[in-house]
Amino acid sequence: MSDVNGVARDQLRAFVERIERLEEEKKSIADDIKDVYAEAKGVGFDTKVLRKVVAIRKQDQNERMEQEAVLDLYLHALGMVPAPEEE
Amino acid sequence: MSDVNGVARDQLRAFVERIERLEEEKKSIADDIKDVYAEAKGVGFDTKVLRKVVAIRKQDQNERMEQEAVLDLYLHALGMVPAPEEE
Amino acid sequence: MSDVNGVARDQLRAFVERIERLEEEKKSIADDIKDVYAEAKGVGFDTKVLRKVVAIRKQDQNERMEQEAVLDLYLHALGMVPAPEEE
Amino acid sequence: MSDVNGVARDQLRAFVERIERLEEEKKSIADDIKDVYAEAKGVGFDTKVLRKVVAIRKQDQNERMEQEAVLDLYLHALGMVPAPEEE
Repeated sequence: MSDVNGVARDQLRAFVERIERLEEEKKSIADDIKDVYAEAKGVGFDTKVLRKVVAIRKQDQNERMEQEAVLDLYLHALGMVPAPEEE
Repeated sequence: MSDVNGVARDQLRAFVERIERLEEEKKSIADDIKDVYAEAKGVGFDTKVLRKVVAIRKQDQNERMEQEAVLDLYLHALGMVPAPEEE
Repeated sequence: MSDVNGVARDQLRAFVERIERLEEEKKSIADDIKDVYAEAKGVGFDTKVLRKVVAIRKQDQNERMEQEAVLDLYLHALGMVPAPEEE
Repeated sequence: MSDVNGVARDQLRAFVERIERLEEEKKSIADDIKDVYAEAKGVGFDTKVLRKVVAIRKQDQNERMEQEAVLDLYLHALGMVPAPEEE
């Protein structure tokens, strides 16, 4: 019999093993991603910026443009960016 | 006049400064917490366990006891803890 | 020619696409893990505890036992657990 | 006597209570910060952008300008921004 105090031992073990296998795969892919960034760095790319590029590509581009415009406005109001030309 | 392209410059600056002041205070208290842990470590306490104690005290204790009981059951079913006595 | 202001356009695009493909795979495996937990929940397992089991299996078991012993000591000192039997 | 199995009960309790008091203060300031953002939102500011402004002000501004320049280069190379004027 496979129950321990009402816990289906084999079923529990199977779930745990499936999760562990998937977590290993996930970890392995996360390592691959790090390797690609390292490779990009090795040929001269700025990986911090590269990460930002990847993040930006996930965003809605219209929404992003609008946010950048509001950001410029705020930074300008705070004197944190040079005034736009011809103002 | 205090508007820059419709942004109320003084109001914006006031919000930013209030947030920055509060964030400094928050940072300062976070540093104090680290100091208390360092002091506890200095007189021999295990700070990893101390953090766990603090976390446990935030939990509902009945709920915690129930979860610990289920955890024991699962670990036992997986052969990860010695069998309870007299079984 | 594939350079834009000194940026190797094709190389950049290749890196970005490799990263995006890997991130999709990672996301897909993360979804699979969620599905396994959902399935375990569906047959009656406590997924919060199941997550803890998976985390515990990653730890060094001797270290874990030691930490649990210290935790019991601290909780006991604070009157947060019933005194051990026969004291 | 104040020791329980070698744990200085009063000292442990004092540390825990100091930590809990500081954590409450930290939580209270975090709530204050949320309130300021809510107030800013209430008078029409975009709080997502406001958070970004606060983050930008923490950065080294020269470093930030350089990173923005590299980002523009990469986005441009990927055809993700309109070409700069007069190129």
